[in-house]
Amino acid sequence: MPDPARGMLACRDGFRTIWHAGDGHVQIIDQRKLPHDYVVADLRVWRDGERAISDMLVRGAPLIGATAAYSLYLAAFEEGRSGFDTAAAALAGSRPTAVNLRWAIDRVVARCRGVDDAGLTAAALAEARAICDEDVEISLGIGRHGLELIRRIAERKDGEPVNVLTHCNAGALATLNYGTATAPVYLAHEAGIPVHVWVDETRPRNQGSQLTAYELAHNGVPHTLIVDNAGGHLMQHGLVDLVVTGTDRTTRSGDVANKIGTYLKALAADDNDVPFYVALPSTTIDWTIADGIRDIPIEERDPGEVTDVYGVSDGMRTTVSTVADGTPAANYAFDVTPARLVTGLITERGIAPASRDGLERLFPEYLPE
Amino acid sequence: MPDPARGMLACRDGFRTIWHAGDGHVQIIDQRKLPHDYVVADLRVWRDGERAISDMLVRGAPLIGATAAYSLYLAAFEEGRSGFDTAAAALAGSRPTAVNLRWAIDRVVARCRGVDDAGLTAAALAEARAICDEDVEISLGIGRHGLELIRRIAERKDGEPVNVLTHCNAGALATLNYGTATAPVYLAHEAGIPVHVWVDETRPRNQGSQLTAYELAHNGVPHTLIVDNAGGHLMQHGLVDLVVTGTDRTTRSGDVANKIGTYLKALAADDNDVPFYVALPSTTIDWTIADGIRDIPIEERDPGEVTDVYGVSDGMRTTVSTVADGTPAANYAFDVTPARLVTGLITERGIAPASRDGLERLFPEYLPE
Repeated sequence: MPDPARGMLACRDGFRTIWHAGDGHVQIIDQRKLPHDYVVADLRVWRDGERAISDMLVRGAPLIGATAAYSLYLAAFEEGRSGFDTAAAALAGSRPTAVNLRWAIDRVVARCRGVDDAGLTAAALAEARAICDEDVEISLGIGRHGLELIRRIAERKDGEPVNVLTHCNAGALATLNYGTATAPVYLAHEAGIPVHVWVDETRPRNQGSQLTAYELAHNGVPHTLIVDNAGGHLMQHGLVDLVVTGTDRTTRSGDVANKIGTYLKALAADDNDVPFYVALPSTTIDWTIADGIRDIPIEERDPGEVTDVYGVSDGMRTTVSTVADGTPAANYAFDVTPARLVTGLITERGIAPASRDGLERLFPEYLPE
Repeated sequence: MPDPARGMLACRDGFRTIWHAGDGHVQIIDQRKLPHDYVVADLRVWRDGERAISDMLVRGAPLIGATAAYSLYLAAFEEGRSGFDTAAAALAGSRPTAVNLRWAIDRVVARCRGVDDAGLTAAALAEARAICDEDVEISLGIGRHGLELIRRIAERKDGEPVNVLTHCNAGALATLNYGTATAPVYLAHEAGIPVHVWVDETRPRNQGSQLTAYELAHNGVPHTLIVDNAGGHLMQHGLVDLVVTGTDRTTRSGDVANKIGTYLKALAADDNDVPFYVALPSTTIDWTIADGIRDIPIEERDPGEVTDVYGVSDGMRTTVSTVADGTPAANYAFDVTPARLVTGLITERGIAPASRDGLERLFPEYLPE
């Protein structure tokens, strides 16, 4: 588990973003405070977990799922079966776009079905732990497959760094460790392949400037922060070799919902022949839908996230409003990148073309009857 | 001239962004302070004008040109011919991308050529005033041609507002009055056509949230602020009828340099069959170059503009850092949208296809020999 005194640890030191701290006690990093403060937050009742998800103390599809799983454990510990059932229903609505949330809840519920009240808490805890342990293995699997992409690019760059552009945080902080989009980067860096990351700021919540830049720095990976507007210009001038992002939900046909703005980077990559990959655990695939633009619900969040910016001024933590009072704003949290713009999907089992055929070949067990 | 006590006036009330306030005295609005404070700044020596341009108290290609012209008047007033010549050479380098800067300087220099020392100040002032007066007429010309585009869209919308997306500020504040991209919007609003503007925040300097939203509010035009990442999603869902931006320099083949991120919106418009227009005074056309991506110099500014954000907290004006100390950042100020993505160029003489033929037909006097 992270050492609060040291701030975030390097991935290889067994870093985790959520952990069991004792009976009825789970801990997370309050990611809203990063990079200025490294604060560990306590979850003692399941409603703490629900709030951690909806208020974005935790974010990132895999970590949202893990937090929901641990919240079910807290519900069982606290209130037994009735609390567990209430929590399972309520947690599913805490964020609408990420599909792992539902997947993790379904998994804990299935594990606990038929378990007597005495065993409920232990079963829920065991399943939450299993989800977390498996997530690390999934990230490492994604990392190993993505590493080969980076290695192939490095071979033609003659010692120059491979420039990877990423949007939002699909890093260690979005998962249990290593991340999805960042896992190939971390493994390349560990393997001695020179790599440099263009970090999109990711307005409105600045997960790029506040989380991705932070975790890359703590893992020693060279990187440069840019505004979300800059990626197209960089690609026009040959300064990006590869785009890798995460996803909150991927349809069975390979459409990808991810942080708002991802679609714009995919268009620029397509226009400049830059490969555009999406890294995902197979748990983020929604096999029930095909048309992402039509069928994935896009969360609209508080307009205050657009008008107000959190930061540090003279050592004081503060939020400033950048606009005149009363300025109306809208805040769409995600967009959908159609499969035709996605070069490939990097999963824990390998890299699939972003298509129904590509996904079904890698995950035949999900084939519809 | 604006009334500081009232803040920015409506366009129709004869608003100006720069004006002669007395002998050797020019005034501007310090646009860095908007929208929180409406501060008029004094230019008393030509170096004040140079600093106003480079530090971005004024910005926007037409207003940069007008400020350079008035700075030459101040140089003549202050130091006569030798100061005038020094200023003309120095001002040309104060910002590299906007071509109006050079155009305005060349124009004042030409007007003052052969004028004796006694007449120099008066000639420079007369030319600066003429540039400003003509700029308002140019904006109105752009507005009238663009109005017809909006009117045609309105006819098929059955009373629903026409949704216009714009990036950065190509508004009254970027020109002398009415703006370039906003002129059609203001004229449509005055004509009673329902219009609504999606205002891109425009990181890193937030000209959208801090200037465009402000001037639209003061002119009663309905608008909604969005992050730069959101436009593609809106276009995918039919929520944008028309994109109109300004430009800092347009090549003779119709490539358009504008605020960083414009290219990404052009790609999204193209992908969703949304018309993408660029509004420009013909003074922003650089007839000497054809390939914008290769030949237009793109200014790189202080990385602090990316990492630090200006705003208001509890009534106090302050700048916050959004990142961990030492986070490396890059700040490219403009990008180039290739002509193939531009539906048309709205000029004071009419709407031209974004091509060499289209521009030469409208401006035959610039045909190369």
